[in-house]
Amino acid sequence: MKPKKHVHYFGKTKSEGNKEMKSLLGGKGANLAEMTSIGLPVPPGFTIDTQSCADYYDIGGMLPDGLMDEVRENMEIVEKELGKQFGSEEDPLLVSVRSGAAASMPGMMDTVLNLGLSDKAMEGLARVSGNRRFALDAYRRLINMFGDVVMGVHHEKFEVEFDRIKADFGVTLDTELNEAGLEKLIEAYKLVYRKATSEDFPQDPYEQLEKSVEAVFKSWNIPRAIRYRQINEITGLFGTAVNVQTMVFGNMGEDSGTGVAFTRDPSTGENEFYGEFLINAQGEDVVAGIRTPQPLAEMVKWRPEMYEQLLEIKAILENHYREMEDIEYTIERGTLFLLQTRTGKRTGPAAVKIAVDMVMEGRITEEEAMLRVPATDLNQLLLPTFAPEAERDVLTRGLPASPGASAGRLAFTADEAVERAHAGESVLLVRKETSPEDVSGMHVAEGILTSTGGMTSHAAVVARGWGKCCVAGAGAILINEKKRVMTVNGRTFGDQDVISIDGSTGEVMAGSVRTQDPKLSDEFSTLMGWADNHRTLAVRTNADTPEDAIRARQYGAEGIGLCRTEHMFFKGERITRMREMILAETEEQRRRALDKLLPMQREDFKGIFTAMKGLPVTVRLLDPPLHEFLTQDEKLQAELAKELGVSLEKVQARVAMLHEANPMLGHRGCRLSVTYPEVLEMQVTAITQAAIECKWADIDAQPEIMIPLVGVDKELDMLRQLAERTMAIVAKDMGYPDPLDIPVGTMIEVPRAALTAEQIAEHADFFSFGTNDLTQMTFGYSRDDVNNFLPDYLEKELLEKDPFQSLDVSGVGRLVEMAVAEGRKVNEDMKMGICGEHGGDPASIAFCQKVGLNYVSCSPFRVPLARLGAAQAVIRQQSDS
Amino acid sequence: MKPKKHVHYFGKTKSEGNKEMKSLLGGKGANLAEMTSIGLPVPPGFTIDTQSCADYYDIGGMLPDGLMDEVRENMEIVEKELGKQFGSEEDPLLVSVRSGAAASMPGMMDTVLNLGLSDKAMEGLARVSGNRRFALDAYRRLINMFGDVVMGVHHEKFEVEFDRIKADFGVTLDTELNEAGLEKLIEAYKLVYRKATSEDFPQDPYEQLEKSVEAVFKSWNIPRAIRYRQINEITGLFGTAVNVQTMVFGNMGEDSGTGVAFTRDPSTGENEFYGEFLINAQGEDVVAGIRTPQPLAEMVKWRPEMYEQLLEIKAILENHYREMEDIEYTIERGTLFLLQTRTGKRTGPAAVKIAVDMVMEGRITEEEAMLRVPATDLNQLLLPTFAPEAERDVLTRGLPASPGASAGRLAFTADEAVERAHAGESVLLVRKETSPEDVSGMHVAEGILTSTGGMTSHAAVVARGWGKCCVAGAGAILINEKKRVMTVNGRTFGDQDVISIDGSTGEVMAGSVRTQDPKLSDEFSTLMGWADNHRTLAVRTNADTPEDAIRARQYGAEGIGLCRTEHMFFKGERITRMREMILAETEEQRRRALDKLLPMQREDFKGIFTAMKGLPVTVRLLDPPLHEFLTQDEKLQAELAKELGVSLEKVQARVAMLHEANPMLGHRGCRLSVTYPEVLEMQVTAITQAAIECKWADIDAQPEIMIPLVGVDKELDMLRQLAERTMAIVAKDMGYPDPLDIPVGTMIEVPRAALTAEQIAEHADFFSFGTNDLTQMTFGYSRDDVNNFLPDYLEKELLEKDPFQSLDVSGVGRLVEMAVAEGRKVNEDMKMGICGEHGGDPASIAFCQKVGLNYVSCSPFRVPLARLGAAQAVIRQQSDS
Repeated sequence: MKPKKHVHYFGKTKSEGNKEMKSLLGGKGANLAEMTSIGLPVPPGFTIDTQSCADYYDIGGMLPDGLMDEVRENMEIVEKELGKQFGSEEDPLLVSVRSGAAASMPGMMDTVLNLGLSDKAMEGLARVSGNRRFALDAYRRLINMFGDVVMGVHHEKFEVEFDRIKADFGVTLDTELNEAGLEKLIEAYKLVYRKATSEDFPQDPYEQLEKSVEAVFKSWNIPRAIRYRQINEITGLFGTAVNVQTMVFGNMGEDSGTGVAFTRDPSTGENEFYGEFLINAQGEDVVAGIRTPQPLAEMVKWRPEMYEQLLEIKAILENHYREMEDIEYTIERGTLFLLQTRTGKRTGPAAVKIAVDMVMEGRITEEEAMLRVPATDLNQLLLPTFAPEAERDVLTRGLPASPGASAGRLAFTADEAVERAHAGESVLLVRKETSPEDVSGMHVAEGILTSTGGMTSHAAVVARGWGKCCVAGAGAILINEKKRVMTVNGRTFGDQDVISIDGSTGEVMAGSVRTQDPKLSDEFSTLMGWADNHRTLAVRTNADTPEDAIRARQYGAEGIGLCRTEHMFFKGERITRMREMILAETEEQRRRALDKLLPMQREDFKGIFTAMKGLPVTVRLLDPPLHEFLTQDEKLQAELAKELGVSLEKVQARVAMLHEANPMLGHRGCRLSVTYPEVLEMQVTAITQAAIECKWADIDAQPEIMIPLVGVDKELDMLRQLAERTMAIVAKDMGYPDPLDIPVGTMIEVPRAALTAEQIAEHADFFSFGTNDLTQMTFGYSRDDVNNFLPDYLEKELLEKDPFQSLDVSGVGRLVEMAVAEGRKVNEDMKMGICGEHGGDPASIAFCQKVGLNYVSCSPFRVPLARLGAAQAVIRQQSDS
Repeated sequence: MKPKKHVHYFGKTKSEGNKEMKSLLGGKGANLAEMTSIGLPVPPGFTIDTQSCADYYDIGGMLPDGLMDEVRENMEIVEKELGKQFGSEEDPLLVSVRSGAAASMPGMMDTVLNLGLSDKAMEGLARVSGNRRFALDAYRRLINMFGDVVMGVHHEKFEVEFDRIKADFGVTLDTELNEAGLEKLIEAYKLVYRKATSEDFPQDPYEQLEKSVEAVFKSWNIPRAIRYRQINEITGLFGTAVNVQTMVFGNMGEDSGTGVAFTRDPSTGENEFYGEFLINAQGEDVVAGIRTPQPLAEMVKWRPEMYEQLLEIKAILENHYREMEDIEYTIERGTLFLLQTRTGKRTGPAAVKIAVDMVMEGRITEEEAMLRVPATDLNQLLLPTFAPEAERDVLTRGLPASPGASAGRLAFTADEAVERAHAGESVLLVRKETSPEDVSGMHVAEGILTSTGGMTSHAAVVARGWGKCCVAGAGAILINEKKRVMTVNGRTFGDQDVISIDGSTGEVMAGSVRTQDPKLSDEFSTLMGWADNHRTLAVRTNADTPEDAIRARQYGAEGIGLCRTEHMFFKGERITRMREMILAETEEQRRRALDKLLPMQREDFKGIFTAMKGLPVTVRLLDPPLHEFLTQDEKLQAELAKELGVSLEKVQARVAMLHEANPMLGHRGCRLSVTYPEVLEMQVTAITQAAIECKWADIDAQPEIMIPLVGVDKELDMLRQLAERTMAIVAKDMGYPDPLDIPVGTMIEVPRAALTAEQIAEHADFFSFGTNDLTQMTFGYSRDDVNNFLPDYLEKELLEKDPFQSLDVSGVGRLVEMAVAEGRKVNEDMKMGICGEHGGDPASIAFCQKVGLNYVSCSPFRVPLARLGAAQAVIRQQSDS
């Protein structure tokens, strides 16, 4: 058997890969090979594939046999191509080692630069470069990075030495330290290294390389990497690839530099070349956000011919990839090298604009454009912006790193942000700079504000990826993490002060600035039009008020899939009447209280039917257990008793009687209607009266009655009959002559309902899958309590996703599939939809498409997402078949 | 089309039915036809079939067309046969109208006697009978019964008149009233009738008949009939038949009489003719328990030839039916008539004895014998009896109406009994006599004590049917329902006093008498032996202590299917250690507390393994949420804080933190082991150490480890690995050289586990269906809260059975079937069982047999039941195929 190939070369000699090989070579490696193939100026090197990483874990954390031999063979080709030798003491070839998985994970994986330097090779580099300071600096960087990343020596230990020696030499900036200082620094670093590792810093370049490769493999499974994959729902990868590439130096003097660029604006999507550069610096300096770089346009002043070359490269890349690309480049003594290109991360608005523009430019098809916009990104387009006329107390202005308008109380560390956000607070994370350790805190914060770092710093890139508002590099801000205060222009803000940030202008403002609804772009409308043409699933909304209904209709909702009626009973006098009903001792008393609620309910429904005229409105009858309408507070109980003219004891006795050990599995939903049919009668009466009054006013009301929590076919049979009798009586009483044709259907949200769907279908005009409750009961997870263990389950990868966010296809989905099939056996045209949170999740929408539902229903803000998600599901289904 | 036949004749002329036609003719009608066919002396008549009752309801409560015409045609045949005419004013033919469904429902349906009498016909009867008092008495009975049963006139209204007239005539007994008195009584009754109904008592016999038939049909659906069907799980019937039969009179003087008899003793099963009779009485007087009848043996003294004739009839019946029969007979002026025969109700011990005896007598096969003993009746054989050496403060002695030994506080009405029993009290229902309205209260009471009525009174028959202890006709007892006291021989007992009754001796005793375990009969062992030979399902038990394990083993358990470990943590010091573990803030602290629990757990397991040596013991790891081990009581919290040396605030904070909205769906089961793997490690260590120590002591321990509440295959994968690692470490530490081979399996109790059984099976050595939780989650019913609506569901027939009592085949059962099929796909020999309450329910056991489980596990007392149930399932399966 031919031994497995682990290493894939890229360079002038040959290119053993292309951009389709991401799964094996990682995104970075595949693109390096691709770039090389299309003639871009890429430093040569080779990629150790992701399968090797998987093998590394499979065999218990050891490099696969033969891997290092292959590495040596490939290194020889590089050496031949460049005429330098790895580890040479005369003219050493230096390489970088970088991770690169199939999916982009910025900043999460570790990188080592300048491999191949040793005490002697450093002197060789000094000689051939004619710049001893540069060689010393390269060597100290290697010891620091290798020590930190590969050997786990705490970065701080090196920093302390650096600060000490800078102080000894009386300088403040790193770049001010002279050769003597750097020599001292190298000695100090070596000592730090030996103390921490009990070994000397390795002088053998292949030892450096082997250890680095292993470190990259190990970094695949550190907690923050796992966490990033969870947040971003990245699954199914082998591991990371390792890219070993010739070093080029942007820090070889004032004719050198480094930078990053996007072929279009990643915030807005405008077709403008967009990026930054730093003179005399290594690439890591840009990404880490330690120095604030200059905008790309400034390069014209410095090196116009370089800027021209970059523009040519932009054109080549966009023509070739038909995508917006994100590149890293380095200029070594006036020569431009491309280190990396990848699909550029972008905000939601930018994703929409780029996709639509590229269709207009004839680069991609409508279908491709729709697949390129992650449906969840559309949420960002619907985010509010600050009202232009609102007063702004602008403190300073940073870089508009990721658009949005957000406000929150200041949190100074990621951990603090997580804790306070979980306690329900809106927090704004304020950091000097962010690092991969901060992602959890960044994820929960309303927005992110940093005092250093540019548009491509960690904070900016991650925030844009999530569509979270970020202002970066607001240099006027001084942060004192220990004292937990931030000072700006003499004003001080603590952890209870609210700050607003505008991610589109970079403004940082005191207090909470008023926001307004967004204006939707033309490109958004174009994309939505394409989506509507492609999708077969209808999209409805979950709305309980005319206001929500109108908003959802503006966003394209084609009906209400879930109108909850319980919320209607909480406002004003209604809650008192509701409590009177609950405290009633006889059916007659109950009916008296219900009679008072009836006209209010009728008006509610008239409002909603009017807002949705011409479209169906599915009204769910009362669902929560009655105790939710009472109060545990003795003072409020006393007030209630007084108001209703009953004793406090009676109120308390009723509260006690209604107490349930597991209310989720208790006396609620249609079980209430079985015990108290008069409640159903009141609600159906209100719906019917509202419908008739609308019809008389020439408003096309289309109510549908939905009976919740059915688990037994006879429940639905009995309650449907009661509803129909009630409708007939109301129609007769009001003298309405025509048939009303109000469909009566049920939620499928109890596992037993799905299991006996065939019997239930006999009595149902429609099924609406209540996947929230169905998930709770199928998993046996109480949504209120699941946070006690679900984070652990995600962390330990026992579950791939939170099943309340994205429908669990194997378990819950199986029940849905069964119910669809069996319901359709009885009535092949039965209308079926989904009305849980999952209706606004693209993966769940794809599932709904697959099993043949007729519609999804989601919250108003998610309606555009669902429209696009439904179209994507069709397109993917077609391309799969 | 030939019109539907509604009426079926029985008599000398023809017999249009037989005993196989119960479904159409009802039990009583089918047997009347059958008895007629085999030449028994049955008064002629005809049966209106059950389909007519169904039709009556289908067409909205009207008698089907043509029914009354058929009735007249059949009546003419009777008239021809007997030479009398219905409604004749000379020699009137009188008939009874009785209900009779396919299943026996004693006392639940209404009966009318003496139909055909009118003012004039009464005089005719007086003339031909030569007994005007008898004719008057018959007529007053008709008005009373017809008024009460058919027209809904309250019985009390007639009673009041009777009492008044008896007083006027200075007599106390009904039979003492003379003709003049009866004439006045008839006038008074007619007045009562007119006042209540606004009509005169009908003089047209066919009007009487038509209204009576309708009343019988209506009585099918009165609440107490529905309730009786629910308690007895009677479903699938069309309705009741109506039997119209010539009247014969046991009250025509001292040469007449009436009685009931069983062909064998219904309490013990002894092959002894057993019954009672009343001289000069109608049959209703016996059943209603108003007069206390004489034992059948006494008849020899009164009419020896009648006794001989009854013995002949007993022989004919047992030869013909091959069953123990329950007959009603009447002697009219020295001539014996059989009014009814049906399969006799019997106690559990009697059922076993009769079935086994009949096999020995060559009447039936072993298989038939096994099917004849309702498996649930075996529970009665395992009921405790009073210890012979216990002191008995005997107050009086009644009739030993239904065996058993029970004690409880006195309840004086059925409603009171229901209420107090639901509140958790043990009550003894004390009534002068019971009536069908009392069944709910009888059902919940520990035992029933009546002061009047015989061995075949309502109380006695119903109690025997349920296997409930009953002492009837304890005449020394005086009951004052209003004052809620019972007086016996000068001693008074109130509702807080405990009384014991012995259903085998009739003794009524003050206080709670000590009980002992029963001695099992030889017939029981014989039957169990047959069952073991036939069944294919193994029977295990649910036991958590060596004592329970030993008891279950004595009853034939073949292993422990569910050994819960949480109960072990409640006694003595353990709960403190458990709480210490729960309050620990670090893994290390938790481990320290667990280390203290370990030796105790190990000893628990050694005890159980030893008790069950040679048989498997399935140990379920910790299941309940941790808050169950803490306390809500502030005083106890303070004590705990002191004991553990922590602050009260800390204890309270932990209690608050562990609080869950829906603990049933919360952090419990294997979810605990995911969060706190050290708990699993401790338990597996204890199991492994106990197993090894047993093996060293030459005790064949066969533990199996069961991981509860698995819903996701990866949970089981991870925890199984942890368990196996732990076992390996323990074995190594103890120097145990051989493989331990402890299987690791899982509960299937979360719907998702059943839905993804194929994946879960990859990691499981066995499946144990936890149908309690599976039912909770599949229905969405919390067992703790279900009583808020389940009684309503049963009442309204939305559910046929309580799904926690008997497995819901269509919903929960479907999940079980799916899981069995998919688990077996992965491992066709996988051992599968059930360990919920359903393991002790015969219908559920039959389901387990059908889907191919390997064993059922139930509480120790239900093991014999399960053994017989499993055999019955096989026999029924064979006869079905």
